[in-house]
Amino acid sequence: MNTIDAIMTEINQVMKLIDEKQLEEAMPLFQKNKRIFVIGAGRSGFQAKGFAMRLMHIGYTDYVMGETITPSIQKGDTWVAISGSGTTKSIVADTEAAKKIGLDIVVLTSDPESPLAKMADQVIIVPGATKTGAGVQSIQLLSTLFDQTVHITLDTLTLKLAKRDDTSNEAALHAHVNVE
Amino acid sequence: MNTIDAIMTEINQVMKLIDEKQLEEAMPLFQKNKRIFVIGAGRSGFQAKGFAMRLMHIGYTDYVMGETITPSIQKGDTWVAISGSGTTKSIVADTEAAKKIGLDIVVLTSDPESPLAKMADQVIIVPGATKTGAGVQSIQLLSTLFDQTVHITLDTLTLKLAKRDDTSNEAALHAHVNVE
Amino acid sequence: MNTIDAIMTEINQVMKLIDEKQLEEAMPLFQKNKRIFVIGAGRSGFQAKGFAMRLMHIGYTDYVMGETITPSIQKGDTWVAISGSGTTKSIVADTEAAKKIGLDIVVLTSDPESPLAKMADQVIIVPGATKTGAGVQSIQLLSTLFDQTVHITLDTLTLKLAKRDDTSNEAALHAHVNVE
Amino acid sequence: MNTIDAIMTEINQVMKLIDEKQLEEAMPLFQKNKRIFVIGAGRSGFQAKGFAMRLMHIGYTDYVMGETITPSIQKGDTWVAISGSGTTKSIVADTEAAKKIGLDIVVLTSDPESPLAKMADQVIIVPGATKTGAGVQSIQLLSTLFDQTVHITLDTLTLKLAKRDDTSNEAALHAHVNVE
Repeated sequence: MNTIDAIMTEINQVMKLIDEKQLEEAMPLFQKNKRIFVIGAGRSGFQAKGFAMRLMHIGYTDYVMGETITPSIQKGDTWVAISGSGTTKSIVADTEAAKKIGLDIVVLTSDPESPLAKMADQVIIVPGATKTGAGVQSIQLLSTLFDQTVHITLDTLTLKLAKRDDTSNEAALHAHVNVE
Repeated sequence: MNTIDAIMTEINQVMKLIDEKQLEEAMPLFQKNKRIFVIGAGRSGFQAKGFAMRLMHIGYTDYVMGETITPSIQKGDTWVAISGSGTTKSIVADTEAAKKIGLDIVVLTSDPESPLAKMADQVIIVPGATKTGAGVQSIQLLSTLFDQTVHITLDTLTLKLAKRDDTSNEAALHAHVNVE
Repeated sequence: MNTIDAIMTEINQVMKLIDEKQLEEAMPLFQKNKRIFVIGAGRSGFQAKGFAMRLMHIGYTDYVMGETITPSIQKGDTWVAISGSGTTKSIVADTEAAKKIGLDIVVLTSDPESPLAKMADQVIIVPGATKTGAGVQSIQLLSTLFDQTVHITLDTLTLKLAKRDDTSNEAALHAHVNVE
Repeated sequence: MNTIDAIMTEINQVMKLIDEKQLEEAMPLFQKNKRIFVIGAGRSGFQAKGFAMRLMHIGYTDYVMGETITPSIQKGDTWVAISGSGTTKSIVADTEAAKKIGLDIVVLTSDPESPLAKMADQVIIVPGATKTGAGVQSIQLLSTLFDQTVHITLDTLTLKLAKRDDTSNEAALHAHVNVE
């Protein structure tokens, strides 16, 4: 078996374990009159940013924690935290702060028993292997399998939101940065 | 003379050459119902980001080119480009694109004859030394003197905008990120 | 069919079209005594960064164009450019500059006839749909299918490099940032 | 008095209070065979990045916490933390972690009694006003005066290091990114 096939076998295995109903339960927390803040560290952080970019493309008001124009968070905003292990220190600390302020907390993690998962109003379990050993076993390094499958999971959520809102590809293209 | 004094002598010299009237002429292009896009590369880019962050703190809608949630630009938006030499290739190219789309162009540069300056609807000349040799001579490396003085110039503009808008320090503190 | 299955069908279809031999042909350009520079815009840029991070974890010296400590490029370095359409203006311009300086050019794109592909010393075709319409058709927005499949493709390359170099998961974990 | 003069009066006042000897005492912690990690949040973070970029230009090996290729920290590395108030939660937490691992800690802050200052092996006091009220009083918003004066202070340190190492402007220009 070549390496691509071996990796695709892992990804398919994880994606079969994801409960699409959890995505549907999270959807009411994504509304055009709510502000959405996303947070993630390392490679999970890149997937968080990719999700944030697409949310903007489909018409949401959202921000990435740590970027230049990210404002203060307020009660009623939605908070999306991503961590494979559910234990990344800064993510857990900031999510605690967000919860205390009164945001609605969505968590994507491999580990339903993690501190991050336990703070969630809606958890989405993505059981790809992480660097702490949670999730489906993998031949890949560190939490690569989690990164890959959380990427696809967030894009699934995006597509479901676009369908719910009746947002077309043309509308998204219009919002896409036109100077790059 | 110690090094701090030598550097402060340079900075004071440049700041005396800045025409505060140019800041005042740029102010009408900063309005709360206009979107503002800022762009800069390298250390000028960090000052562009610092300015963008403060604009958000005082109530403006603004974006940094290259960040995650930056949307497409449109006619009527304001574009702020920063380049000491006024020749940084990507900044010049993107400013051309912005001008063509119909944005109002504000340029901060050392060189009034640079390609970037020539595209400006309003130019603000900050004659600190740059890595191409424009501006006041400096004992500091590369375009450090430009970076320092463009930093102070942008903060002067911010303070003048806050005064015009009657925005208090308390309001700015309220907008400042509350989870960091 | 639920949305996850529909998306996985697309991803599996694209990954079957990828020629693992192209990855193997690119591998000689990744060596521990070569510096590697990666570049990408938008969501492709996030995948470029994810790849760069893993290269660091497995012991390579690499840089992301646009980040703070990225130095000047020099003849003999490796340049990795990612663009679904192969036409993103800034990526094409910077890759031209890199080629002129004498870097070895690796390109990941959907379109083998694109300007970017034509500059490559080694091209890796990832035929996921892009926002310009290249690649396998997709129900997903813009170039999402490309982003997903270039993510998996780069991770496949990483795993093959780690195996070639005999780099363990423990070694990668040791390099992974320990304060986050 | 125009606004530029008012701001320059503040900046000159703060810079006169900086003890250049503190910079000189920090210099032994900056060596070409030591790795240097810099950290800062918000506008202090942009000044941290500007400093990191110049350190690279003058031949040091350094990293910005939170960027893509930043590796794990180790005993013997140098850690530079910047916070006006000296209380920014994530900076304090990460500096504690760095201290525990055995890094040499350099702190730039307005407040010598802050938790951050107390962890320093070498503190550099920059008494510009911060958003918590430490430092010299200012007409400017939030911690602007700190940002400006820490910018100049770090550039002073850079110039002193370049002189100590006999690094020319030409050498720095050679290291400066050549594709932007």
